[in-house]
Amino acid sequence: MTVLKGAAIFGQSGGPTSVINSSAAGVFQEALKQEAITAVYGAAHGIKGILDEQFYDMSKEDSYELDLLKTTPSSALGSVRYKLKSAEEDETDYKRIVEVFKKYNIRYFFYNGGNDSMDTCNKVSKYMQKVGYECRVMGVPKTIDNDLFGTDHCPGYSSAAKYIATSTMEVYHDARVYNTGMITILEVMGRNAGWLTASTALASYKGQGPDLIYMPEIDFDMDKFLEDCTAIYKKNGNCIVAVSEGIKDKNGKYISEYGSDLAQQKDSFGHSQLGGLAATLAAIVKEKTGAKVRGIEFSLLQRCAAHCGSANDVNESYLSGQMAVKYAVEGMTDKMVGFKRAEGSEYKCEIQLLNLTDVANTEKKIPREWINEAGNGLNQHFIDYALPLIQGESTPPKEDGLPRFAKLKKVLVSK
Amino acid sequence: MTVLKGAAIFGQSGGPTSVINSSAAGVFQEALKQEAITAVYGAAHGIKGILDEQFYDMSKEDSYELDLLKTTPSSALGSVRYKLKSAEEDETDYKRIVEVFKKYNIRYFFYNGGNDSMDTCNKVSKYMQKVGYECRVMGVPKTIDNDLFGTDHCPGYSSAAKYIATSTMEVYHDARVYNTGMITILEVMGRNAGWLTASTALASYKGQGPDLIYMPEIDFDMDKFLEDCTAIYKKNGNCIVAVSEGIKDKNGKYISEYGSDLAQQKDSFGHSQLGGLAATLAAIVKEKTGAKVRGIEFSLLQRCAAHCGSANDVNESYLSGQMAVKYAVEGMTDKMVGFKRAEGSEYKCEIQLLNLTDVANTEKKIPREWINEAGNGLNQHFIDYALPLIQGESTPPKEDGLPRFAKLKKVLVSK
Repeated sequence: MTVLKGAAIFGQSGGPTSVINSSAAGVFQEALKQEAITAVYGAAHGIKGILDEQFYDMSKEDSYELDLLKTTPSSALGSVRYKLKSAEEDETDYKRIVEVFKKYNIRYFFYNGGNDSMDTCNKVSKYMQKVGYECRVMGVPKTIDNDLFGTDHCPGYSSAAKYIATSTMEVYHDARVYNTGMITILEVMGRNAGWLTASTALASYKGQGPDLIYMPEIDFDMDKFLEDCTAIYKKNGNCIVAVSEGIKDKNGKYISEYGSDLAQQKDSFGHSQLGGLAATLAAIVKEKTGAKVRGIEFSLLQRCAAHCGSANDVNESYLSGQMAVKYAVEGMTDKMVGFKRAEGSEYKCEIQLLNLTDVANTEKKIPREWINEAGNGLNQHFIDYALPLIQGESTPPKEDGLPRFAKLKKVLVSK
Repeated sequence: MTVLKGAAIFGQSGGPTSVINSSAAGVFQEALKQEAITAVYGAAHGIKGILDEQFYDMSKEDSYELDLLKTTPSSALGSVRYKLKSAEEDETDYKRIVEVFKKYNIRYFFYNGGNDSMDTCNKVSKYMQKVGYECRVMGVPKTIDNDLFGTDHCPGYSSAAKYIATSTMEVYHDARVYNTGMITILEVMGRNAGWLTASTALASYKGQGPDLIYMPEIDFDMDKFLEDCTAIYKKNGNCIVAVSEGIKDKNGKYISEYGSDLAQQKDSFGHSQLGGLAATLAAIVKEKTGAKVRGIEFSLLQRCAAHCGSANDVNESYLSGQMAVKYAVEGMTDKMVGFKRAEGSEYKCEIQLLNLTDVANTEKKIPREWINEAGNGLNQHFIDYALPLIQGESTPPKEDGLPRFAKLKKVLVSK
């Protein structure tokens, strides 16, 4: 093993989750322990912080606060959505990154995010190799969307799934208190993959969830939906529907645009922004059935609900950060940390390393075989997959009955 | 003390909460212990179940399941919104109630709800007195709106407040991860009183909450709001706003109607239903500032989030049900159970009995002195009031990582 001495930098990228900071804690606490690592930096707003030379000295933080990161939602360092052009197209950013890395002798680069972020990570990794700057690059996975290629699942998903399933069960009870009937539309995040929306099936598995579940994996047929929804409502007096924000019709048109289209025909005020998919579908269903209809959007709540986290997720997220550091120090580079589930009925996941090249920009969708034939629900395959992920309760320590989240000092490294 | 032998019936009414079933557990478990009470019934859908002779024999339930009611949200028996006409206007319903009570020898009537439900309870109580049918009538308070007269606070409020404050803190973190800025509008329930919306001030007290809070107690001035919101956004790059669904302008017009008005001028599809207040305000703010704006509606989630309950609330709710039974057996009638807070810095509440006549239909609003001068935030008076209420963690027992809610057999009493 070659010992590579130098500083390490960690960045958070893309949409935050309730456990992205747990991965950060894993990276920081492990890196601070490693002798090979001479300094530990946290990039402000991911790659942007590197380009702008804005990063924090993590050795200045209290260890108690670093520990609290495990149960602090969102991105404590700040996140970013910044797409690096390919080096062939424009080398400016890459040259700047190398310049900054050289200046601070940064030899370890850890990047935490989803598909786009792994693309960034991959590009940086390949460029470093090309120009011969020795730097170990490791991707740390994160996305509530659960759509990263090659890994059994992604940190962030399990906690979001647990929150969504729990809240869906609660709404199930709330939505049937009156004897007057109601149709409830739950809107869940997920532009291209339906993993999050599918997690409502865990509530259905408990007999307290949606009757109908629609994901982007299956073309959405409005007529069939209205027919099915009406039939269930007429039979039971109630109907709960879960939809991914990204459902599209067979022509590839987002259903969320149906409402704004109708509005824009006659309306210059821009009411397309007024409601999301849940509100649009609720209006259409109400028009059709005359029933009381309520649209509920989980919105940001679903990705930051650290108060209802999966302990399994928090631990795995921490582990993925920690192992990224260990493997890098041992000499690995150009990889993303992933999870491989062991065979057998008992849930067990091992760390596996995936090539960044393979991971970058490949989306993993729900297998068709896990979705029922009608395309409006999940079967036991999905339950067997998802149920182990949401096990264990994680909740932040409390102060005055409210969560005590990490408070970082964020001491900027002087330029 | 006169021992009054007979059956007891309990009904749930109005909007459910995450602890209305805890009060039910208190009533049922206490009533099942009392020798004077010969049978314990749970009315299906409140007063409607009495009129329709649809009620459950609670002695048939497993004691474990009755215990689980403490942490099961919504109304396990089913709720109702049914306004009794005054007996002077129409005696039909009252005569029917007396008929049913006589048939089953019901001598104890417990009714759980908010303002409207206490009105029902009061009317039934007065009618029983008028016709000389001996029946002890006790109101058990419940409303997330916290607007019942005479009691320090209402069961249901504290848990909703805890959930709202917790989620608001989480959203606070999520809403500032990017360096591009965002304005976030949080819509909270509360048609006439701002107690729930005010609970977001607990998050602000922790430095992780809204910059601006608007409640129905204060006339909403759109121009002033846009001015304040823009100024904060320009200064901080972020602004979080919490609004009660029921805020009105100085002419008494609901702000939530602003959007639909604009839409209805040109649009026949009924887009007034598309978005709620948060979506409407978000559209207006976006138009004005050009900022990225997100509207988030807590919707039903805020009243059924038993997974994030206040242990204090769950215990008090149980106690209010239990004490209603004890007092009734001891001879009290025509009262509502309320809470009286002891003086001093340590939180302590005692049960007090209030006259139903006084409680029925009187709304308690936030005192003006608890709201800041500008009318867009709360001061320390409110924090001192609300913070003790949200203490202690209540969460349902888990099964498969998901809440295990009560499953009642609901054995109907044969007619």
